[in-house]
Amino acid sequence: MRIVLDAMGGDNAPAAVVEGGVMAAREYGVEVVLVGRREAVEPELARHDTQGLSLPVVHASEVIEMNEHPALVARTKKDSSMVVGMQMVKRGEADAFVTMGNSGGALAVALFHLGRLKGIKRPALGSVFPTSGNPAFLLDLGANTECKPEYLVQFAIMGSAYAEHVLGVRNPRVGIVSNGEEEGKGSQLVQEAYPLLKASSLNFIGNVEGKDVPAGLADVVVTDGFTGNVLIKASEGVASLILGVLEREIKQRPLSMLGALLAKPAFRAAKRTLDYTEFGGAPLLGVDGAVIVGHGRSNAKAVRSAVRVAKKTVESNVLDVIRAGIAASGTAEE
Amino acid sequence: MRIVLDAMGGDNAPAAVVEGGVMAAREYGVEVVLVGRREAVEPELARHDTQGLSLPVVHASEVIEMNEHPALVARTKKDSSMVVGMQMVKRGEADAFVTMGNSGGALAVALFHLGRLKGIKRPALGSVFPTSGNPAFLLDLGANTECKPEYLVQFAIMGSAYAEHVLGVRNPRVGIVSNGEEEGKGSQLVQEAYPLLKASSLNFIGNVEGKDVPAGLADVVVTDGFTGNVLIKASEGVASLILGVLEREIKQRPLSMLGALLAKPAFRAAKRTLDYTEFGGAPLLGVDGAVIVGHGRSNAKAVRSAVRVAKKTVESNVLDVIRAGIAASGTAEE
Repeated sequence: MRIVLDAMGGDNAPAAVVEGGVMAAREYGVEVVLVGRREAVEPELARHDTQGLSLPVVHASEVIEMNEHPALVARTKKDSSMVVGMQMVKRGEADAFVTMGNSGGALAVALFHLGRLKGIKRPALGSVFPTSGNPAFLLDLGANTECKPEYLVQFAIMGSAYAEHVLGVRNPRVGIVSNGEEEGKGSQLVQEAYPLLKASSLNFIGNVEGKDVPAGLADVVVTDGFTGNVLIKASEGVASLILGVLEREIKQRPLSMLGALLAKPAFRAAKRTLDYTEFGGAPLLGVDGAVIVGHGRSNAKAVRSAVRVAKKTVESNVLDVIRAGIAASGTAEE
Repeated sequence: MRIVLDAMGGDNAPAAVVEGGVMAAREYGVEVVLVGRREAVEPELARHDTQGLSLPVVHASEVIEMNEHPALVARTKKDSSMVVGMQMVKRGEADAFVTMGNSGGALAVALFHLGRLKGIKRPALGSVFPTSGNPAFLLDLGANTECKPEYLVQFAIMGSAYAEHVLGVRNPRVGIVSNGEEEGKGSQLVQEAYPLLKASSLNFIGNVEGKDVPAGLADVVVTDGFTGNVLIKASEGVASLILGVLEREIKQRPLSMLGALLAKPAFRAAKRTLDYTEFGGAPLLGVDGAVIVGHGRSNAKAVRSAVRVAKKTVESNVLDVIRAGIAASGTAEE
């Protein structure tokens, strides 16, 4: 399998990306194509032992920066690592594309250069979300600020396919985010999407409130990109707030410091359960190609996980499952 | 000062509510009127030492249950503790009303029996939100699922007055929740509210993302009731997820158990920083009377805090400040 990695994307590029790519090539036995400025990528690659690994470098002279306007760059920066990398997927020269860069940029480049899967109205960005049980899969995280009810139904079909075939959840429970549990509660969008989801062949369990997402009540959590973005970023923020406050309070007390030292294995295990770097990247679902977008702050470990997610995405043929699900749902025709 | 407490509201009523009312009467030197079924309230009251405290019981034969439909009950349950209590405020027989009951019911009863403050288009439910610094004030939490841009401006005026006069924040920074920091990012609602907020006399700092709320970037965080509800409930859920996972991992390891025991003072201090029971109730802003709605799961300590919030709300004359702010803003006339 050949996975293209955007060596220039993310806050820690290219160093952490190259390091993560080397780790992934070694651990998962895949070919990792590093796309980016040759003069920046090759010195990083030279710092690692890559004997026996397949890590070709493909030169791309431009970089889509984190703050650039997505729609503009997709058309103009034709020699950027994102465009060059996705073109390889388009031409069948690679199986998947992975980036830690500008997620709006990745969406725009994917739409322009890969196009949508047949019948898909809007692609969505999804991510696993830690819960006390199996991680949930949440989408959309921001690809679509404004949504129509039928988009949410398609997100649910895509999310359900991903949860089942990539995450290994059998008959995933699908919930829609709302500000109340009962049917009839929620924004106009939720109220209109609810009956469509209920009528679908999905395992729809109804509304889920904000607290139900980390509680693991649903395996697939569907919402518009505005709400999903706020939900996941607030969750990240609350997690760092809690760990930060705890650390501050521990550091003020010598006995607590000692206690925290003794409890370190438990802290580490808890952190692992909750750590996004373990889960890897967020799939961009609904475009005609496997595209994984990692967190901009990804370290090497998170990059490695993103490549693992890409590998699983390809192996599971989830794109074919989505294609079939959309065709069978009747949502493609409207 | 006389504060009416809905003895029948909340999951732990009347026991925890009465206990919290007794604590508040003792600690804050206020008169706490307990409204509810005399036969349920008086036995609870008899369990406490109330010598020297003013804790009259006012009988109300009906109860608005947690799952009842707000609009219906406000008109029909005329002898419910919520209606009887708010009527006392309306007639000037009490200074504030506090309930741990059905928040939608409280809103409906307040709208019907107290009415709106002059010029207010929609009342909003607000709450403090823990951050690593001073708590932020977030509104709306669910009173208004669908909002118009001018509602958000009024929420910002009310929230700013509350943060300044009740929470003691000087010149509070006002942010609007969005899925991107830059001006122009966000839903149509956010994009339309942004210039209105920018043109106001408030200390508007622009968009805040989900992660910025717990980080304490803004003192007043304005959003529609759908997003606010999801944001605060997800935050609560993530907090209990993290503490739950941590506890589970600690309990699996004897050495970590010992460590956690030693670190207990730090844990306790951290929990205090993050604990909603310390902050007390959420004010219902924009109705013509001081109304505080506590968490349904409130224990006695949380009830006591809610009474304290009510007392501060009355003392600060924040309703007059809001009245003046709305009049000066020009948002009342449209």
